[in-house]
Amino acid sequence: DFLGALEEVHPAFGVAETELQQCVANGIIQYSKDIGRILSDGKLFVKQVQDSKVTPLVSVLLHGPPRSGKTALAAEIAMTSDFPFIKLISPETMVGFTEQAKMATINKVFNDAYKSPFSVIVIDAIERLLDYVAVGPRFSNNVLQTLLVLLKKVPQKNHRLLILGTTSSRRVLEEMELTDAFNEEIYVRNVEDLQGVDMVLRTLAVFGDRERDRSIQTLRSAGLESRIGVGIKRLIMMADMASRDEDKVDKFVTLMADQGVRASLEE
Amino acid sequence: DFLGALEEVHPAFGVAETELQQCVANGIIQYSKDIGRILSDGKLFVKQVQDSKVTPLVSVLLHGPPRSGKTALAAEIAMTSDFPFIKLISPETMVGFTEQAKMATINKVFNDAYKSPFSVIVIDAIERLLDYVAVGPRFSNNVLQTLLVLLKKVPQKNHRLLILGTTSSRRVLEEMELTDAFNEEIYVRNVEDLQGVDMVLRTLAVFGDRERDRSIQTLRSAGLESRIGVGIKRLIMMADMASRDEDKVDKFVTLMADQGVRASLEE
Amino acid sequence: DFLGALEEVHPAFGVAETELQQCVANGIIQYSKDIGRILSDGKLFVKQVQDSKVTPLVSVLLHGPPRSGKTALAAEIAMTSDFPFIKLISPETMVGFTEQAKMATINKVFNDAYKSPFSVIVIDAIERLLDYVAVGPRFSNNVLQTLLVLLKKVPQKNHRLLILGTTSSRRVLEEMELTDAFNEEIYVRNVEDLQGVDMVLRTLAVFGDRERDRSIQTLRSAGLESRIGVGIKRLIMMADMASRDEDKVDKFVTLMADQGVRASLEE
Amino acid sequence: DFLGALEEVHPAFGVAETELQQCVANGIIQYSKDIGRILSDGKLFVKQVQDSKVTPLVSVLLHGPPRSGKTALAAEIAMTSDFPFIKLISPETMVGFTEQAKMATINKVFNDAYKSPFSVIVIDAIERLLDYVAVGPRFSNNVLQTLLVLLKKVPQKNHRLLILGTTSSRRVLEEMELTDAFNEEIYVRNVEDLQGVDMVLRTLAVFGDRERDRSIQTLRSAGLESRIGVGIKRLIMMADMASRDEDKVDKFVTLMADQGVRASLEE
Amino acid sequence: DFLGALEEVHPAFGVAETELQQCVANGIIQYSKDIGRILSDGKLFVKQVQDSKVTPLVSVLLHGPPRSGKTALAAEIAMTSDFPFIKLISPETMVGFTEQAKMATINKVFNDAYKSPFSVIVIDAIERLLDYVAVGPRFSNNVLQTLLVLLKKVPQKNHRLLILGTTSSRRVLEEMELTDAFNEEIYVRNVEDLQGVDMVLRTLAVFGDRERDRSIQTLRSAGLESRIGVGIKRLIMMADMASRDEDKVDKFVTLMADQGVRASLEE
Amino acid sequence: DFLGALEEVHPAFGVAETELQQCVANGIIQYSKDIGRILSDGKLFVKQVQDSKVTPLVSVLLHGPPRSGKTALAAEIAMTSDFPFIKLISPETMVGFTEQAKMATINKVFNDAYKSPFSVIVIDAIERLLDYVAVGPRFSNNVLQTLLVLLKKVPQKNHRLLILGTTSSRRVLEEMELTDAFNEEIYVRNVEDLQGVDMVLRTLAVFGDRERDRSIQTLRSAGLESRIGVGIKRLIMMADMASRDEDKVDKFVTLMADQGVRASLEE
Ligand SMILES: Nc1ncnc2c1ncn2[C@@H]1O[C@H](COP(=O)(O)OP(=O)(O)OP(=O)(O)O)[C@@H](O)[C@H]1O
Ligand SMILES: Nc1ncnc2c1ncn2[C@@H]1O[C@H](COP(=O)(O)OP(=O)(O)OP(=O)(O)O)[C@@H](O)[C@H]1O
Ligand SMILES: Nc1ncnc2c1ncn2[C@@H]1O[C@H](COP(=O)(O)OP(=O)(O)OP(=O)(O)O)[C@@H](O)[C@H]1O
Ligand SMILES: Nc1ncnc2c1ncn2[C@@H]1O[C@H](COP(=O)(O)OP(=O)(O)OP(=O)(O)O)[C@@H](O)[C@H]1O
Ligand SMILES: Nc1ncnc2c1ncn2[C@@H]1O[C@H](COP(=O)(O)OP(=O)(O)OP(=O)(O)O)[C@@H](O)[C@H]1O
Ligand SMILES: Nc1ncnc2c1ncn2[C@@H]1O[C@H](COP(=O)(O)OP(=O)(O)OP(=O)(O)O)[C@@H](O)[C@H]1O
Ligand SMILES: [Mg+2]
Ligand SMILES: [Mg+2]
Ligand SMILES: [Mg+2]
Ligand SMILES: [Mg+2]
Ligand SMILES: [Mg+2]
Ligand SMILES: [Mg+2]
Repeated sequence: DFLGALEEVHPAFGVAETELQQCVANGIIQYSKDIGRILSDGKLFVKQVQDSKVTPLVSVLLHGPPRSGKTALAAEIAMTSDFPFIKLISPETMVGFTEQAKMATINKVFNDAYKSPFSVIVIDAIERLLDYVAVGPRFSNNVLQTLLVLLKKVPQKNHRLLILGTTSSRRVLEEMELTDAFNEEIYVRNVEDLQGVDMVLRTLAVFGDRERDRSIQTLRSAGLESRIGVGIKRLIMMADMASRDEDKVDKFVTLMADQGVRASLEE
Repeated sequence: DFLGALEEVHPAFGVAETELQQCVANGIIQYSKDIGRILSDGKLFVKQVQDSKVTPLVSVLLHGPPRSGKTALAAEIAMTSDFPFIKLISPETMVGFTEQAKMATINKVFNDAYKSPFSVIVIDAIERLLDYVAVGPRFSNNVLQTLLVLLKKVPQKNHRLLILGTTSSRRVLEEMELTDAFNEEIYVRNVEDLQGVDMVLRTLAVFGDRERDRSIQTLRSAGLESRIGVGIKRLIMMADMASRDEDKVDKFVTLMADQGVRASLEE
Repeated sequence: DFLGALEEVHPAFGVAETELQQCVANGIIQYSKDIGRILSDGKLFVKQVQDSKVTPLVSVLLHGPPRSGKTALAAEIAMTSDFPFIKLISPETMVGFTEQAKMATINKVFNDAYKSPFSVIVIDAIERLLDYVAVGPRFSNNVLQTLLVLLKKVPQKNHRLLILGTTSSRRVLEEMELTDAFNEEIYVRNVEDLQGVDMVLRTLAVFGDRERDRSIQTLRSAGLESRIGVGIKRLIMMADMASRDEDKVDKFVTLMADQGVRASLEE
Repeated sequence: DFLGALEEVHPAFGVAETELQQCVANGIIQYSKDIGRILSDGKLFVKQVQDSKVTPLVSVLLHGPPRSGKTALAAEIAMTSDFPFIKLISPETMVGFTEQAKMATINKVFNDAYKSPFSVIVIDAIERLLDYVAVGPRFSNNVLQTLLVLLKKVPQKNHRLLILGTTSSRRVLEEMELTDAFNEEIYVRNVEDLQGVDMVLRTLAVFGDRERDRSIQTLRSAGLESRIGVGIKRLIMMADMASRDEDKVDKFVTLMADQGVRASLEE
Repeated sequence: DFLGALEEVHPAFGVAETELQQCVANGIIQYSKDIGRILSDGKLFVKQVQDSKVTPLVSVLLHGPPRSGKTALAAEIAMTSDFPFIKLISPETMVGFTEQAKMATINKVFNDAYKSPFSVIVIDAIERLLDYVAVGPRFSNNVLQTLLVLLKKVPQKNHRLLILGTTSSRRVLEEMELTDAFNEEIYVRNVEDLQGVDMVLRTLAVFGDRERDRSIQTLRSAGLESRIGVGIKRLIMMADMASRDEDKVDKFVTLMADQGVRASLEE
Repeated sequence: DFLGALEEVHPAFGVAETELQQCVANGIIQYSKDIGRILSDGKLFVKQVQDSKVTPLVSVLLHGPPRSGKTALAAEIAMTSDFPFIKLISPETMVGFTEQAKMATINKVFNDAYKSPFSVIVIDAIERLLDYVAVGPRFSNNVLQTLLVLLKKVPQKNHRLLILGTTSSRRVLEEMELTDAFNEEIYVRNVEDLQGVDMVLRTLAVFGDRERDRSIQTLRSAGLESRIGVGIKRLIMMADMASRDEDKVDKFVTLMADQGVRASLEE
């Protein structure tokens, strides 16, 4: 029909600005050299998609422990491209959807992307998109197959696509041969040393300088330095929570000892 | 459409007063120091949600043995916040619902909450919401995935949300990575000493003073003191049942020996 | 709507007289002291529900071997209450129902009960309501979850509910945590001694006095006394079948030896 | 509605004459004393249902190896009652039915039966009604539950029902607790001695006298006598097949040696 | 309705000539004595069905390795009967059908057959009709049950039916008790000696005489004679393929060594 | 109906030119002798289908490691036939389809093919068409059965069909007896020596001559020569990625050492 034809012809330009910005609500703190490298690698992938004649499709998987900042980094990379089409595929916008509806939603984003000369798609929390649960295990094979195909489907001539996936369950995705469908992988680490923690506390500015120093010192003298391992998202929450306590330093050190020491290392 | 737009704009204020009050039908008896601490911790979480700039979403899981008072405590915390939106998500209002209907109901409560500047949602008896049964095991993966996503979904700017979950099957929730989606956990213990039992009997006032004393003494001299472990809800039922017997003391002691001694310790 | 509103307001009084009477078609024979105690315990539960201020909901599970008289006893207790609302939930009225229809039917009975100030609900043959079969095992998780929730759902203020369940598969219900949802349990034994058998034969009056005496004597002299164990329902069937035989005594003794000796002991 | 009411009132008299006669297309050959005893036991059950005051429902299961004549015997017993309502429930009339349709069909026959003062229902090839297959195993739990309930459902006052079931998979039915739902069981044996084979050959008259004698003798001298075990239905087929061969005796003996010797003993 | 009634009365004569002829597109080559015996056995079964008074239904299963000629032989037997109703039930005409549609199609063929005085039904590739796959295993229990019932359902008086089934997965059918539902079985072997291969090459005439002789000789001198085992359908394909090669003899011998030597022996 | 009839009569000529050309977007580089042989074998199969009188259907499976060029080779063979009907069945055009829709789509292509005198069908990425995932494992048995039947279904007289399948999961297809349904198999190897790598780099021309030579030399001197094993598709992507790096040679060698050395050997 006529409208369908129109839809075919007109590129579906569109940038999901607000959604992506919300993913980076607390900014990108440079708590380790990794962060910089991840962002510059991201830019290289954007370049390759833009220029290459033989690879019109590049797909990259950001994986790492829960709350380590994967979504924020993927969103940041996507936003720093100046592609006319940038979209986020996220389980949060598909709560209560049937499998069919999820597949249709995902497919629609890809089809829109194919119409723009340059596109970025962020596929967030893939294990959740798949409705994965270890008990069983159960997951939506329909959504999985949709992703397996779309991750390999090359856009038509003169169209380029960068796909950025995130997951905290890389092993699960590997069993499903989903990792194999990505061209590249980026590992997002936890904050793993006291220097990093210090940097985060400085940036957040929820503690006074002396409280911050005392916190770091206490952690160091408790011999915890070598065992630090905490996702940036959790670290921010913990610092915030401690900042409301009467004894901020004590609370923060306790929280770090309980949850922030290699607590979330196992991916 | 226009009505839909309206719905978007107007915050869905609303407080489920009666429903929550019914959860605390027999009051909150201070049978141990824990009770006080749980309630004051609850107030701190309310505060954090209200004030923080970096954590607009806080989620807490109350877990413990069956009948230990989890629902009553969650309801109490929710009611003592003075948030304009307080809602209870309970399996009791969803009997006979399809999975789709359950997901829609849950999703609706969250969407309404997102429209209020400050909201509390109590998610009661999560294992039941999930239709969990150990035989199989079977459960609704759809409801599970809905919860996994909603527990992490951050409200938009200037909106804050406190989520209080309850369960008597923490281990099950852990396998499903649901515990991981909560920021904090609170353990609700059984009544575990005779002082506690005494306090409860005093408050209920279904026994005379001498009967109560004799009951406590008999339990103590029977050497049962160290093995007491009974949910407050069950204790109230047992005291009530004994109070109708000819020999109240004997009946109560028998019931305690049968059911109230570590009977429900295994979570 | 208006009719719906009406329905809300008017209590759904109603007593399932005929259905319940049919459950006790062959009366209640006092073949052991247990029978009397079960009936008087039943009355106590009725009382508690009627009077208590803290326990508006009491639930009791009658369990025991197949054909031991569970349904008849539950029906008898229900009928001897003088509550305005008494209803039987039985698989026999739901043959061929879908899971949804079963859930709706069960839910409807409970909702009607909640409207009466005092109600009794008999839930008969719960393993059958659950469509349970050991091969698999398979069962209706939907019906199970409905029961798990309704057994714990407290009626609103000024409304009281007594629930009487029956099952010959207690172990199955335990695995499903259904037994845990009941407040109390009553064990219904088989007829387990010759005195009991004698009493039953006397009441049925299908044998002459001499035939009955000879039957009992033969069983005793055969040394079977200590191994008697037969459900009252089966015993009645066997006595009736033997009464049509040419040699009633021989037939009855044979049937007892084949089927009535501990035949149905394993629950 | 009015028609529905009519249906309630008018008894659904009806006898499935032709269907039942087809089940006994080759008559009932008295190839052993068992056959007579089974038929006379059948008459006793008919009597009990007719006269008893305490047992308005009697159910009997005919089981035995494949092709041993179970259906024919059940049909024969049903036809020799002079009850006004006699119906056959058979998988053959439900080919391609959905589970729901099967349940409805079965339920309908029972509901019709309840309206007649005296009824017989033959439930043929129960393992097939259940869509049972050992691979898995798989079966229709819905049909199973329908049978489990209907086999125990007592007709209302002044209505009597005799149920005759058949199966060649008793063990399967036992696992499903279906055997437990029957009041009595009858075992239908194979033809198990040469006298029986001789009797069958005589009655069929497909061989001449000398051929028949030679066949029997050959089997005896081959020492096969003690290992005979062949369903009457298969025996008839084998005799018929041999009768078309040039060397009838040789063919028949070969077939018996291949298939008729304990071939179908395992139930 | 009237048309339905008509349908009942009028026999559904019909012979699926073209379909059956296509199954024997390359004729029946007499590459071993087996072939002749199978065809004459087939005629005997046709006779039995035609004449017998006690067995109006005969069912025969042709089984053997893949590509051994089962379908062609079944079709040949069916065509050489001069019955007025001959139909082929084949998965090839049911691609993409739902289970219900398959069951309906199968059932329809049988119902049409019952209306003709003499009918033959060929049920081809039963494992495929069942949608069988070893992974799982999975199969359509609905189609299986349909076959289990229809294979035993005796046509009404004066109607006779011969059923010819084929399968290359006899073991699977046995597990499902489908083999038990057939009255007889015929084993279709591979071409298993060089004489047979020679005969096939002669009949196909794709090689010159000298090439054929050289091929046979090479195979013999390579010592492969005793290990030949190749389905007739595969042999024809291999001969045809080799005939287009420059070195026909070499190609044919290579193909035989690779695929034609006991390659398809395991059923 | 009339249109349906028309459809039956008119051959559905049609060649999926653009789709097929896109599969060979980067041409066919002759990096080893295999490539030539595969293409010429392909031509022979085309010939056989065209000319033979006994084999109107030939089916060939191209299998090999991921990204080894299977789809490109199948497309190339299909395009070099000058058949009037050439179609590609690919999961990429069926994203989000239901099983029924997939089956219908596949079936439609085959039915169209049957109407042309000479047809080629490419069935790409069969494991993906089957929605296969190793976890479980799960797959669409409906699509599998459709393929199992269509791969063996012989077109009617005067119609010929060549089927070219591709898969990177041959073992999975074998378990499902799908390999057995193909007449022939072609193994597509990785690029497995430095000569091949050199040839590819030459053809792509993304490196200068000296960079290319240095890359090859470095790989050789690193002793990696004997362990090379990389799919052509991956090799092209790696060369392209390296060509954007500052140190192209270093990047390329690193990528080869990481991913291109036997990385994708295991099929
Ligand atoms: N260097 C950083 N990298 C990533 N996020 C950062 C960094 N510095 C600060 N942040 C903030 O930390 C938060 C990271 O949360 P994010 O949702 O990205 O984590 P995640 O790994 O995706 O968590 P989850 O496993 O729950 O999906 C964001 O609020 C972001 O603004
Ligand atoms: N300190 C207390 N904490 C909680 N409940 C109390 C306390 N004192 C008295 N109660 C009363 O005890 C009952 C607790 O029941 P509640 O339903 O909360 O238990 P629960 O642990 O949620 O049980 P379940 O495991 O069945 O869900 C309520 O009636 C409440 O009023
Ligand atoms: N003391 C008794 N207790 C129970 N039933 C009795 C007693 N005396 C006689 N009866 C009669 O015995 C029968 C008991 O049957 P009932 O259906 O209650 O058994 P049941 O245990 O529920 O069997 P099932 O396991 O099949 O559900 C009834 O007909 C009842 O009238
Ligand atoms: N004594 C007998 N008992 C039963 N059937 C007999 C007897 N004598 C002859 N027959 C004939 O034998 C056949 C028995 O077949 P029937 O269908 O009853 O066997 P079945 O055990 O039900 O077989 P299946 O296991 O296939 O259901 C009938 O044709 C019947 O007329
Ligand atoms: N003696 C023979 N027996 C059977 N088929 C023969 C014989 N001689 C030649 N043929 C030809 O061989 C082919 C046999 O193929 P057919 O489809 O019957 O094999 P099949 O065993 O059914 O294969 P599948 O296992 O794939 O179903 C037919 O083309 C037939 O004409
Ligand atoms: N000799 C060759 N053989 C195959 N493809 C080649 C060859 N030379 C260059 N190519 C190019 O390499 C790419 C091969 O990709 P193709 O999609 O066919 O791989 P594949 O094995 O099907 O991958 P996948 O396992 O992902 O399905 C195509 O772009 C093709 O143009
Ligand atoms: Mg994330
Ligand atoms: Mg609770
Ligand atoms: Mg009962
Ligand atoms: Mg039978
Ligand atoms: Mg075949
Ligand atoms: Mg490919």
